[in-house]
Amino acid sequence: MRFHTRKWVKPEDLNSNGTLFGGKLLAWIDEEAALYAIIQLENNKVVTKYMSEINFMSAAVQGDIVEIGIEVVKFGKTSLNLNCEVRNKMTHETIVTVDNIIMVNLDDDGKPKSHGKTKIEYVKDRLAAG
Amino acid sequence: MRFHTRKWVKPEDLNSNGTLFGGKLLAWIDEEAALYAIIQLENNKVVTKYMSEINFMSAAVQGDIVEIGIEVVKFGKTSLNLNCEVRNKMTHETIVTVDNIIMVNLDDDGKPKSHGKTKIEYVKDRLAAG
Amino acid sequence: MRFHTRKWVKPEDLNSNGTLFGGKLLAWIDEEAALYAIIQLENNKVVTKYMSEINFMSAAVQGDIVEIGIEVVKFGKTSLNLNCEVRNKMTHETIVTVDNIIMVNLDDDGKPKSHGKTKIEYVKDRLAAG
Amino acid sequence: MRFHTRKWVKPEDLNSNGTLFGGKLLAWIDEEAALYAIIQLENNKVVTKYMSEINFMSAAVQGDIVEIGIEVVKFGKTSLNLNCEVRNKMTHETIVTVDNIIMVNLDDDGKPKSHGKTKIEYVKDRLAAG
Amino acid sequence: MRFHTRKWVKPEDLNSNGTLFGGKLLAWIDEEAALYAIIQLENNKVVTKYMSEINFMSAAVQGDIVEIGIEVVKFGKTSLNLNCEVRNKMTHETIVTVDNIIMVNLDDDGKPKSHGKTKIEYVKDRLAAG
Amino acid sequence: MRFHTRKWVKPEDLNSNGTLFGGKLLAWIDEEAALYAIIQLENNKVVTKYMSEINFMSAAVQGDIVEIGIEVVKFGKTSLNLNCEVRNKMTHETIVTVDNIIMVNLDDDGKPKSHGKTKIEYVKDRLAAG
Repeated sequence: MRFHTRKWVKPEDLNSNGTLFGGKLLAWIDEEAALYAIIQLENNKVVTKYMSEINFMSAAVQGDIVEIGIEVVKFGKTSLNLNCEVRNKMTHETIVTVDNIIMVNLDDDGKPKSHGKTKIEYVKDRLAAG
Repeated sequence: MRFHTRKWVKPEDLNSNGTLFGGKLLAWIDEEAALYAIIQLENNKVVTKYMSEINFMSAAVQGDIVEIGIEVVKFGKTSLNLNCEVRNKMTHETIVTVDNIIMVNLDDDGKPKSHGKTKIEYVKDRLAAG
Repeated sequence: MRFHTRKWVKPEDLNSNGTLFGGKLLAWIDEEAALYAIIQLENNKVVTKYMSEINFMSAAVQGDIVEIGIEVVKFGKTSLNLNCEVRNKMTHETIVTVDNIIMVNLDDDGKPKSHGKTKIEYVKDRLAAG
Repeated sequence: MRFHTRKWVKPEDLNSNGTLFGGKLLAWIDEEAALYAIIQLENNKVVTKYMSEINFMSAAVQGDIVEIGIEVVKFGKTSLNLNCEVRNKMTHETIVTVDNIIMVNLDDDGKPKSHGKTKIEYVKDRLAAG
Repeated sequence: MRFHTRKWVKPEDLNSNGTLFGGKLLAWIDEEAALYAIIQLENNKVVTKYMSEINFMSAAVQGDIVEIGIEVVKFGKTSLNLNCEVRNKMTHETIVTVDNIIMVNLDDDGKPKSHGKTKIEYVKDRLAAG
Repeated sequence: MRFHTRKWVKPEDLNSNGTLFGGKLLAWIDEEAALYAIIQLENNKVVTKYMSEINFMSAAVQGDIVEIGIEVVKFGKTSLNLNCEVRNKMTHETIVTVDNIIMVNLDDDGKPKSHGKTKIEYVKDRLAAG
């Protein structure tokens, strides 16, 4: 799994107990999954269709740095299945895992559309080939 | 299921496709589950431990009003299991469902603590009895 | 008065004294009044025209759960007058009251438009009749 | 009346109709009143106790620049009464007025405290005298 | 230099060390420079092209009131050069300075456009002349 | 240069012209620099002291994915100099560059403190050595 995006836990991210608000964490995961799918599918119209169960393993507190990892589980015909882990950057302790996030590729009318992708591509290779 | 909290979908809640950002929706659900658990368990230190699979059934767009429903599935010893549905207020169309959200009751050291609750209580009854 | 929307007071909602920022509270009230009017008038183009005096009765602090109640005062020809109370969910202590909020129903050009409503309706009845 | 703070109306400030969200405007007014009172009373613990009726005179739209004016109505013993107008910076058209905002000076226990001020002071004079 | 906009440092503006987040401060500066340029150039399509070096001189903490000053350095043909200082309102201690911010006047296609302005104008004079 | 954090440009990130608000971009850069420095210096108390000139090379629009790259320029005694580039993830077009960001390592009293670091370290190596 490759970890890209990092977040610094600030006061605006906390719940009333002073730990990282779970809802904020889920919003971070959803954004990361969405942009990962957009990059892979080369289509801006991608939506989250499903998330499998979410396990909150440990808490993060103010000042922690967390990083979000995404891995491709499967390329479907109109969909992309992703696996996500958020962990503490300094200790590598897992904060939350989501085994299966299904992103769906849409056409301009918002209907599922075949994306034609079957494996991970890197932007630098695309640009070199361009 | 009883629906309480309502949200008006504003530009700040949208993803880049102009529909309600899934991450924002998950943050709303998590806040509603947390505050519902705090009310029932009469303890401010409650955390989200687990969410079962999340199905995004339909999209919401700018200007929509959505309402969030919560139902108790089960009172555990230190936990409370909730079921959640978010729907469009005007059409009652389901936007997202989460069948099982596990909230855990914590003591001051952040350890699970028995909450002693076994059934739903209403604040007005507590206050009348107080 | 019926109380629907609930908010969990988080660090992002506080003023510099560590109590709930009054401006945030007013924003919550305005959103609730707007969506309530939209539901009743079945029109998305509704604006806040007037709020009567606002009394801040007690403070809320981090971790408090507040609930927002709205009641119809009067159906006008192009307007809807609402009464609002925000209170602490756990103690029912009043936080703020606004006796008269005037919402105006607009047409597509932003001009006041007759809404034809004279009494409260429930969405479920509308849907059953639909 | 002196106008200081200016805001640029951005997408995050809009309601679902694409005009400036009234609740955001009220939050801006409350912040301006609070900081004005803090400056005059030389005390950080100041709270909004009351706002008189609020008239929304005209709408602001994305890209507009608005400015917020504050004027002292009266120095009370523990309070400060302010008058506020928000207007469009480019046209000077009034957007909203609030004739009387009562800010209360608090001691460390949150009780009203005499502030000893009777007239407007300028920070530069204080510093020159310091 | 004239100081207009003021901000009250609230929990949502802090970094994890409990001082004002530098990024928030830069966002405030950029908004103030943009709206100042829009006012002077009488054109809504103005973008930030360049900021000279930024010196963080002192920290601000929760509850501080800061004010943002802008001064014109030079009117270019399609640009406007500004100088900015943010200081603590109560002590006049400098928090950050940016000596040169270049704002560019754009046409509808996003190309630089001559603005025809050569000196500072006041809105009230424009309106009086109007 | 290594690019880690990615952002999806959403409506809440836009200025009034519908392009990515420069202030938001600067806030993203400052957060990334801060967390990069915290990781390298293994100290949570790190502040931004200085940014060299900032060139806005091209605009980003809603729906764009941007990525933020950071590179170490120099390890000082109490400081760390960083170089930053933000680019469009899909086209690798540069959006903004900042050649020199100086982060300072602080002790508990907020005074500069020697950090003892002289070269880039990877968390996984630290953990393996731990």
